[in-house]
Amino acid sequence: MIDFARGFMPALDAATATVRQTGNLDGAKVGIALTLEPKTACLAEAVASLGAEVSVFGSGHSTKTEVVDALTEEGIAVFAETGADRVRVDLLRDRFIDVGNQYLCDDGASITRRLHRDRRDALKHLKGVAEETTSGVRPLRVMEQNGVLEVPCIAVNDARSKVLFDNVYGTGQSVVMAVLDATNMQMSGASVVVVGYGKVGRGIAAAARGLGGRVTVTEIDPVAALRAHHDGFEVAPVADAIGQADFVITATGIAHTLTAEHVAKMREGTVIAVGGAGPPEFDPSIGPPLSGGDTVRPNVRAWRTPGGTTVFVVADGYCANTTAGEGNPIEIMDLSLALQLRALDHLAGNDLPVGVHLLPDEIDDEVAASQLAASGLVIDIPSQEQAEATRSW
Amino acid sequence: MIDFARGFMPALDAATATVRQTGNLDGAKVGIALTLEPKTACLAEAVASLGAEVSVFGSGHSTKTEVVDALTEEGIAVFAETGADRVRVDLLRDRFIDVGNQYLCDDGASITRRLHRDRRDALKHLKGVAEETTSGVRPLRVMEQNGVLEVPCIAVNDARSKVLFDNVYGTGQSVVMAVLDATNMQMSGASVVVVGYGKVGRGIAAAARGLGGRVTVTEIDPVAALRAHHDGFEVAPVADAIGQADFVITATGIAHTLTAEHVAKMREGTVIAVGGAGPPEFDPSIGPPLSGGDTVRPNVRAWRTPGGTTVFVVADGYCANTTAGEGNPIEIMDLSLALQLRALDHLAGNDLPVGVHLLPDEIDDEVAASQLAASGLVIDIPSQEQAEATRSW
Amino acid sequence: MIDFARGFMPALDAATATVRQTGNLDGAKVGIALTLEPKTACLAEAVASLGAEVSVFGSGHSTKTEVVDALTEEGIAVFAETGADRVRVDLLRDRFIDVGNQYLCDDGASITRRLHRDRRDALKHLKGVAEETTSGVRPLRVMEQNGVLEVPCIAVNDARSKVLFDNVYGTGQSVVMAVLDATNMQMSGASVVVVGYGKVGRGIAAAARGLGGRVTVTEIDPVAALRAHHDGFEVAPVADAIGQADFVITATGIAHTLTAEHVAKMREGTVIAVGGAGPPEFDPSIGPPLSGGDTVRPNVRAWRTPGGTTVFVVADGYCANTTAGEGNPIEIMDLSLALQLRALDHLAGNDLPVGVHLLPDEIDDEVAASQLAASGLVIDIPSQEQAEATRSW
Amino acid sequence: MIDFARGFMPALDAATATVRQTGNLDGAKVGIALTLEPKTACLAEAVASLGAEVSVFGSGHSTKTEVVDALTEEGIAVFAETGADRVRVDLLRDRFIDVGNQYLCDDGASITRRLHRDRRDALKHLKGVAEETTSGVRPLRVMEQNGVLEVPCIAVNDARSKVLFDNVYGTGQSVVMAVLDATNMQMSGASVVVVGYGKVGRGIAAAARGLGGRVTVTEIDPVAALRAHHDGFEVAPVADAIGQADFVITATGIAHTLTAEHVAKMREGTVIAVGGAGPPEFDPSIGPPLSGGDTVRPNVRAWRTPGGTTVFVVADGYCANTTAGEGNPIEIMDLSLALQLRALDHLAGNDLPVGVHLLPDEIDDEVAASQLAASGLVIDIPSQEQAEATRSW
Repeated sequence: MIDFARGFMPALDAATATVRQTGNLDGAKVGIALTLEPKTACLAEAVASLGAEVSVFGSGHSTKTEVVDALTEEGIAVFAETGADRVRVDLLRDRFIDVGNQYLCDDGASITRRLHRDRRDALKHLKGVAEETTSGVRPLRVMEQNGVLEVPCIAVNDARSKVLFDNVYGTGQSVVMAVLDATNMQMSGASVVVVGYGKVGRGIAAAARGLGGRVTVTEIDPVAALRAHHDGFEVAPVADAIGQADFVITATGIAHTLTAEHVAKMREGTVIAVGGAGPPEFDPSIGPPLSGGDTVRPNVRAWRTPGGTTVFVVADGYCANTTAGEGNPIEIMDLSLALQLRALDHLAGNDLPVGVHLLPDEIDDEVAASQLAASGLVIDIPSQEQAEATRSW
Repeated sequence: MIDFARGFMPALDAATATVRQTGNLDGAKVGIALTLEPKTACLAEAVASLGAEVSVFGSGHSTKTEVVDALTEEGIAVFAETGADRVRVDLLRDRFIDVGNQYLCDDGASITRRLHRDRRDALKHLKGVAEETTSGVRPLRVMEQNGVLEVPCIAVNDARSKVLFDNVYGTGQSVVMAVLDATNMQMSGASVVVVGYGKVGRGIAAAARGLGGRVTVTEIDPVAALRAHHDGFEVAPVADAIGQADFVITATGIAHTLTAEHVAKMREGTVIAVGGAGPPEFDPSIGPPLSGGDTVRPNVRAWRTPGGTTVFVVADGYCANTTAGEGNPIEIMDLSLALQLRALDHLAGNDLPVGVHLLPDEIDDEVAASQLAASGLVIDIPSQEQAEATRSW
Repeated sequence: MIDFARGFMPALDAATATVRQTGNLDGAKVGIALTLEPKTACLAEAVASLGAEVSVFGSGHSTKTEVVDALTEEGIAVFAETGADRVRVDLLRDRFIDVGNQYLCDDGASITRRLHRDRRDALKHLKGVAEETTSGVRPLRVMEQNGVLEVPCIAVNDARSKVLFDNVYGTGQSVVMAVLDATNMQMSGASVVVVGYGKVGRGIAAAARGLGGRVTVTEIDPVAALRAHHDGFEVAPVADAIGQADFVITATGIAHTLTAEHVAKMREGTVIAVGGAGPPEFDPSIGPPLSGGDTVRPNVRAWRTPGGTTVFVVADGYCANTTAGEGNPIEIMDLSLALQLRALDHLAGNDLPVGVHLLPDEIDDEVAASQLAASGLVIDIPSQEQAEATRSW
Repeated sequence: MIDFARGFMPALDAATATVRQTGNLDGAKVGIALTLEPKTACLAEAVASLGAEVSVFGSGHSTKTEVVDALTEEGIAVFAETGADRVRVDLLRDRFIDVGNQYLCDDGASITRRLHRDRRDALKHLKGVAEETTSGVRPLRVMEQNGVLEVPCIAVNDARSKVLFDNVYGTGQSVVMAVLDATNMQMSGASVVVVGYGKVGRGIAAAARGLGGRVTVTEIDPVAALRAHHDGFEVAPVADAIGQADFVITATGIAHTLTAEHVAKMREGTVIAVGGAGPPEFDPSIGPPLSGGDTVRPNVRAWRTPGGTTVFVVADGYCANTTAGEGNPIEIMDLSLALQLRALDHLAGNDLPVGVHLLPDEIDDEVAASQLAASGLVIDIPSQEQAEATRSW
């Protein structure tokens, strides 16, 4: 499956060729702490092929054994085990941190935060971080503002070739498909509540509507709400909307999004899923008996509410596409992984100051252009007259 | 999973209640020869609950062991085994036919044709057939025209509550999802060729576009082609279209649709799947080496063409949604199974002449109305003035 | 404008060439009673060019003076005047009927019904009718069932190349645009109630959603309602739906659709329009003061309801696209007019029995194929194996 | 028509009430140099109602006489005349500048640039500019970078409540409608080339597809091109794409976009229009005979190319929606005009430094919230737990 995926990753191929030229990663110690599946394995292999010493960490509920085996065979240090429980994952994470990586691909800033908080011994080796997600860039920016950040970080997530694609198209498609696969339910005619109309929420709403769903969006930001309105979606407060929903999908990236009080208002048979990859979006008020129900289909658990209705939860509230599915599709991950690789190269080849940096536009454009080219798509070059027109006033 | 599905089948519930009133199926011998999975199991259970003696047949590549076990426990005679090979399936089919059913839910008219051809011993018991698919209604009509049909058949497929929903929404969603799941690929930006713009083709094209795919339709019927054109799709001959496709999905219901010559024109990495549930749509010219490739992911086989390119085939050319997925979603099957039950009841309660019949409009309307009601949807009743206006000239 | 339109009418060109070969219309007396605008003028010119003696009738509110002048100059007898009042239109109609046409293109069966009721002197000359609309085919079928129909009629409306295109795409686009043009309002974010989900209603709903509107469908037919539901629209009773609507568009083709009681439930600023081309869809309960308001923009009148709210009515409840716009777009009319011409030819060249007939499939296919060809679109021809497969069982 | 529009402008109403509280505009001299039509007239009236001395300038091809008369009656100084030629418009502009306004709503920065270049006598009175368009913000930023800008400017265009709505939904809908209205052509089945996939281009592409068009996007930016690709559009170089187009619509905001060489490649009957409101997008190479053709319908001119084909140009290459239509729809303009008013107030109430400023987020949010509220839409307030979660790392 790694090979199959790699066959559809022209942008990662191009990035690998580019970084091979710079030689920046040759001999570097690089840690990759992304969800461990065939596509991220392609990144690990690519970095290793450039002469870096690579170690990989993956949390338990999405690690695939075949991937662990394949990477281990290739001499990559893997700190991940399928089905590892919380204690075991913590141990694996600590051993991954022990490696003392210089460069890190982080997800949700989880390793970076731990290094700053508890593992200053390892922090001192760290020269740069490439952060993958919105949920990770947010705390990095808070750390920067609070003056506690100690390494240069590249907000890979904020690259246009990442944020315009991965979050909208990739997560949109894969979360909706994970929910429908888990339940074998039909989207056409279904009432879908999407909590949060950020990029992930927009992608989920678009995919749900694309398959015939009627979508209601809930928001806390008036401009985002107005945008959902003009995109043709219903807009309503979450407490009002969820009473008639067939599917409730949260995509806020913020903890405490869905509470037991919300669940109590749902009708019989409502399906609940999480599309955000950051902190758990379920509030701790959602505990037993809400969280202890029977597994009625793979990845679907039935919760019996105090009021006596039964609702169905996909993937126990973990991000549905990575847990109940295979994560974002290959072509989209190709872009994101190419950006990660270019970010590592950029960190290693430049002496960036401490802070949160954007990936330079040229790199962003090159990654987009490499996937365009592989798709056989050609764009125009501005004529001299046009170029001059954009520079004058 | 049967119970989970049954929880989302209000139309089947309503139909069961209606048929319980008529008593027509009490004591009848009913055979069900549909794809054997949790939803069709719900029909078998419903028919059994009405006092009928039920037997079930299912071909090998889509039968699920848990379903076999569950139905067997409930005293239903199951002639299906997971993974049964061709010889074994033939044996199971013969034993199913040996039962001598009076009423039959058929799929593709496969049992009905066999009874007329080879098993006239069992044909004499048969009092009526409810046919599920377009691919089955077509040969039944040919048999009727040729004067060889000997039993009354109801073209359940042609009921508006079936054909407007099952083929378009159900198969459309489930085939596209099966292909994306099998490959972990992204639909947005992909080039999709849909061969055939009948109801299934329309559904596949709509779902593919709904997820961001660029769809080219190929057709042999000028009106269907013009319709695809006005629906905003490219229209092209299949031989021209497939050269640039990421996905080629056939949905013609006609044998010999895709030939080795077509496959030879595809580019590296093209994914091929079949969305039609009738006769095999691959021409026999597609044989080894085209059909003997490695399995690169579950349900995906790599074919090496004589020209040296590699294409990927989903589910070995069997209908993708039933083979690589779970078939049509629950809510859609609810309509189809309710119609099947009502068709069995209608056959048993009326002495229909030999021929292919439509399900009466009232029954069709009742089934639609029962699902609407369960969804909480209310429609209008024409005022007296409106009713009069429609009757005058 | 006639010339401009004619430049985009390849199907009418092809039909004219075909009918020139048969010579069936040479010397025939042909009456055309369609909405008189540049596109229907193209049909009149085409029929005249084939040697027929052509007369044209058009009712007042959609007749364009330039078209009258252009046709008159070409020797066509025009019985239409811009802005003619009801009395004058009645007189023009009678004079058109006085011509004693042998073949008639009728719209809403209005001339045909009048001939059967009141003008049997002219009916005796009539050899055949080509009827354009759903609203006209319906009463013709009632007449046939009641045994009062006395001429062969071709339900041009029911040809696949007509009904799948004109009603859905042509009227859908043009009604929505006429409403937005009349009001200068935005569709994205608007709440739209579409009353009736027949072909016209489906087209309006699709165009409204295509521009970002949130559509609620009201229906009296459960299957049509379920279809709207699976197409992703809200379904509700009209009386519930209209209270929150920005736009209410009726498309039932049935009198008494919208009543004063409905209007009383609308909120301030609701815009009302009619998309059906048949009988007036406003109930006579909608009279003064509801119908006597000020013109606030061209084609928009403000009605003050008894409850004190103000609603806005487009085109006084006449079909919005022909009255406030230019009717269906050119390419769509090309198909319909080509079918009309072929229907006239078929009536003149065959001795059809009295009754309502469908246009033969071959003619329907030829018309579709001629527009496809002009668009440069190519379709496939079934292989011999495929053709055989469709004939066997 | 002004009154009708004003009835659908809740955000402008709310902004007027807010600014009345501050009193900042009472007694100020305010110039408005936007396209002069009923909606912008609402802004002029609102500013006048707040005690400001208001003058209005509008260029000739879009000024409506009734609007001039209505504003003049209300004591607003109007420097605009319907059908004024270039010389007369220049004179009117100079007289408008003579007024010596303190605050200015500018469009395309055309007045602001002229003041800096040629009218420094009037520049000295100017205390602030609120700029409406992308095409105006661009040169203002160039001026700022070059150190020649001498007044504080607010990039109203860049407010989220402006740029996410006006350019995408408003211009998207209104340009597509203007083109279809001008030609009476059908969008479904049409091939549309959209040159430029910025916000306006995205809106046009979405509206064209929403009505059934097949859209090809041309771009010079790889990320924008990749976005169009994943949005499901074809991507191609403009020179390749235009050969098969039914419609070519440019939306680049950059001069020299469409050249005579491009036009020479178009096929018979192609319709050309401009969707960008900035500098003329036609290159000067497009001169006679290309620009001197006959008017074949209102706002449509036929050009005969040197190669002998005929193409049709909408609105002589001026922005189609303001010239051949009524500009952006009311509800969208409501947002933009409310932002303009708030920007004027912000300029008048604060001593902003020279430079290009964004409108503060709070103001942006308030404007969005006021339209949401008027639409009856309610959003959520973050719980205390959620608010805390977003502040921590």
